[in-house]
Amino acid sequence: MSEYVRNTWYPLTWSRNVGHELARHVVIEEQIVVFRDSGGQVVAMEDACPHRLAPLSIGTLVDDTIECGYHGLRFGCDGRCVHIPGQDRVPDSVRVRAYPVVENMGMVWIWMGDEDKADQSKVFDLPEYHDENYSSFEGDALVLHANYLNLAENLCDPSHVAYVHQSTLSNKQHGDVPVHHERLEDRVVTWRWIIDSPLIPIFEGLKPYQGNVDRWHYYHYYCPSIAIIDFGSAPTGTGAPEGDRSDCIQMFACHFITPVDSRTCIQHWLLVKNMPADEAVDQRLKDGLRIAFNEDKVVLEAIQNNEEKFKDVRPVRLAIDASSMKMRKMVSEMISQER
Amino acid sequence: MSEYVRNTWYPLTWSRNVGHELARHVVIEEQIVVFRDSGGQVVAMEDACPHRLAPLSIGTLVDDTIECGYHGLRFGCDGRCVHIPGQDRVPDSVRVRAYPVVENMGMVWIWMGDEDKADQSKVFDLPEYHDENYSSFEGDALVLHANYLNLAENLCDPSHVAYVHQSTLSNKQHGDVPVHHERLEDRVVTWRWIIDSPLIPIFEGLKPYQGNVDRWHYYHYYCPSIAIIDFGSAPTGTGAPEGDRSDCIQMFACHFITPVDSRTCIQHWLLVKNMPADEAVDQRLKDGLRIAFNEDKVVLEAIQNNEEKFKDVRPVRLAIDASSMKMRKMVSEMISQER
Amino acid sequence: MSEYVRNTWYPLTWSRNVGHELARHVVIEEQIVVFRDSGGQVVAMEDACPHRLAPLSIGTLVDDTIECGYHGLRFGCDGRCVHIPGQDRVPDSVRVRAYPVVENMGMVWIWMGDEDKADQSKVFDLPEYHDENYSSFEGDALVLHANYLNLAENLCDPSHVAYVHQSTLSNKQHGDVPVHHERLEDRVVTWRWIIDSPLIPIFEGLKPYQGNVDRWHYYHYYCPSIAIIDFGSAPTGTGAPEGDRSDCIQMFACHFITPVDSRTCIQHWLLVKNMPADEAVDQRLKDGLRIAFNEDKVVLEAIQNNEEKFKDVRPVRLAIDASSMKMRKMVSEMISQER
Repeated sequence: MSEYVRNTWYPLTWSRNVGHELARHVVIEEQIVVFRDSGGQVVAMEDACPHRLAPLSIGTLVDDTIECGYHGLRFGCDGRCVHIPGQDRVPDSVRVRAYPVVENMGMVWIWMGDEDKADQSKVFDLPEYHDENYSSFEGDALVLHANYLNLAENLCDPSHVAYVHQSTLSNKQHGDVPVHHERLEDRVVTWRWIIDSPLIPIFEGLKPYQGNVDRWHYYHYYCPSIAIIDFGSAPTGTGAPEGDRSDCIQMFACHFITPVDSRTCIQHWLLVKNMPADEAVDQRLKDGLRIAFNEDKVVLEAIQNNEEKFKDVRPVRLAIDASSMKMRKMVSEMISQER
Repeated sequence: MSEYVRNTWYPLTWSRNVGHELARHVVIEEQIVVFRDSGGQVVAMEDACPHRLAPLSIGTLVDDTIECGYHGLRFGCDGRCVHIPGQDRVPDSVRVRAYPVVENMGMVWIWMGDEDKADQSKVFDLPEYHDENYSSFEGDALVLHANYLNLAENLCDPSHVAYVHQSTLSNKQHGDVPVHHERLEDRVVTWRWIIDSPLIPIFEGLKPYQGNVDRWHYYHYYCPSIAIIDFGSAPTGTGAPEGDRSDCIQMFACHFITPVDSRTCIQHWLLVKNMPADEAVDQRLKDGLRIAFNEDKVVLEAIQNNEEKFKDVRPVRLAIDASSMKMRKMVSEMISQER
Repeated sequence: MSEYVRNTWYPLTWSRNVGHELARHVVIEEQIVVFRDSGGQVVAMEDACPHRLAPLSIGTLVDDTIECGYHGLRFGCDGRCVHIPGQDRVPDSVRVRAYPVVENMGMVWIWMGDEDKADQSKVFDLPEYHDENYSSFEGDALVLHANYLNLAENLCDPSHVAYVHQSTLSNKQHGDVPVHHERLEDRVVTWRWIIDSPLIPIFEGLKPYQGNVDRWHYYHYYCPSIAIIDFGSAPTGTGAPEGDRSDCIQMFACHFITPVDSRTCIQHWLLVKNMPADEAVDQRLKDGLRIAFNEDKVVLEAIQNNEEKFKDVRPVRLAIDASSMKMRKMVSEMISQER
């Protein structure tokens, strides 16, 4: 049994996937039945009838209650049992756990900790997602047979880009650009600038830039499982590094990771960019990013496998690990504080 | 390692499946080689040569001995080694366990406990199976990835019928009919009557009944893994509840469950009915029951999976569980007595 | 975790399989990356980058270094890290284990123990392999889901031949020929002669023998995982048992077993014979031996499965086990001495 941060809003699934029908999800090793009620609210409950442990997700929606498919017990959206066949009295103790949920940015978010600490206003938000100068599209819900922290770390790690993503996001000669990092109140930020460099492959043709550009990457890691990569390019000499990004390509790759168990996670990703939606462009970007994230998937699953083979090996620490160590420390501290 | 009742006749396989050839079966986690000898007797032995543990079932039948396929040791039907290549003396200690077996009702039954307690006259029997006014047919040997006691419990549980088998055996409005139960010397009986009700779907057309019927279900659980469901219908007003079943449809669904291990069992079922064999009718009944038992399989396998996920959850007890608690108590007591 | 002899040359893979590209192998539960460098030398290293444990085998060969596919660390053929992106200093501690390797008889051999004990001159050799009066061909690399010692034992065990290989290597009537065995300094030898017997099936047509032959089998077991079977036939009466093999068919079935883990091994086999290479004859022999070794595979995998089911059973010891007990004792002693 792994330990997880509990008092946090975890990404559960795309909002568009949740309808008036029962579905089973797994978050930090807990089995959850999810549906959208007739008022449009998403409901999430423990997916086991307390009577004989039949999954409620194989039961039936009767109005806005779930009727267990085995013996007909019914549960309301708050998890309380409202009907037991064969007896008049419904004991208070017959109930399943209901989880707080909230929707934002096209995702359903679920609170796995103490219910009274669930504050919907604190769910993750990226203001640009709602900005009319930006458009967005959803990528995949990529299942990785890898620990979610290894994925989160990968998504905050500029150092691997030159080696894993040569065909899509980078090229090898920039492996040695200096990287900065800082732990803030609510996150770890890692960033680097590559000055006076050619456009990366997937940016080609998006703007009529002739010469080289200044490229930035800001990796924002929000503990425990959100990574936002703010990356972009502006023509060299127009002052982007000093703060003037009036003419630039800017994208936010948003990664909302669902930890399923210690060796499985789901990487929900979406892209927000300072350009209008355009079917052809968006498809090209999606295809490029899909290749890149699958390149990571191959590496991370191979590492997961090796971690289980080389249990006694303690990885060495390198200069490039500074921000990754900050983020792992942040996770440990959050878990310790919750205990 | 689960605990099982041992001093009992367990159903092994259909008699018709056992010929003069070697086959491997598993009962309560023991591997068993089975064949029918030249005199027609079924033989069952531990399926491992005591020399190097090669399964005897991949050996060869030589007359009525099994010759191990690795080094040629031969074992008689009583499990004693009768020949060892390369040496003249056959030590008494070279033998495999032979299990008592008996055939009845088209099944081979095997005794997993102390050999000197094996009494063939005590093998399960349903007198109607041999009655000329009844006919019978064998259904499936359905493999369930579920604990055998959850299946046995399901087969003694009237309460689930209205929810799991609406299309075949019941309809929802009868979920609340009172259920009775009683522990007898050798079994737990659970029963209920539904008075003045329409015929259930699979009974339609079997008799020229015009109006409503009185329906009964008697569930006989013989510890640890036999369930006989005596169910039938007689026209309302003809006195069936008081004992007059001279004009009725009566069926016995016989379930002979082989516990393979703690999470796998084989449900052998056959139907006995007070009507002559009729190919078309029998096929229709078999199809209907097959649907019903597969409906149970889905639920029971989902429960098995959930039981392994929700290990810390203690199921709540409901009024409808009274007979199920009686049968689980009977099993525990039998296991305790054997220790 | 099983225990293995470590200070020994284990067969790794066929030489012809190793080129200038990265491949992963597993020997005694250790993951190993293997390639042939530009000078033709085979290189073997632990298959995990010490930084984040990414398998080096999914990295890239850059000249004769391996560049990790995740962050670009580079390792030389001796396992030392020679480059770390993002920092100038390469600490001495950043290295992976490099394994001594040597090639002989078409195999790559790897030393799993103390590096300073690795003596290339002690790798296994069969002089006839290099003799111009003999030819050879490679068979399969057969994966067995079985413990390697059970396979090694099988390959030194004349007693099973009459039962497992009736169609290829023997016939039943010779199950009782006496067997001899002797432990020498570096091996256990087991042998038997079958005098005045028909040719075995796979020898038919190889020489124009008219009558019966004297057949020999010498099984040489070199601890822990090499078995050489010297088997042949000479016309009865020409003095073969006394030492005159001037007119004979002689073959060496060489089995080089790679223990992968306690329940998996790879059986590399090749045949050396005192006849020139001949495509049709060699193919026929290969087909026959392939059938025979797959007959063993079936038995050995069934035993492996049974050993895991019958954990409490202690196999009985028979007269035919004398040499097998000698070889198991030899393995235990070697493992003890290494501790």
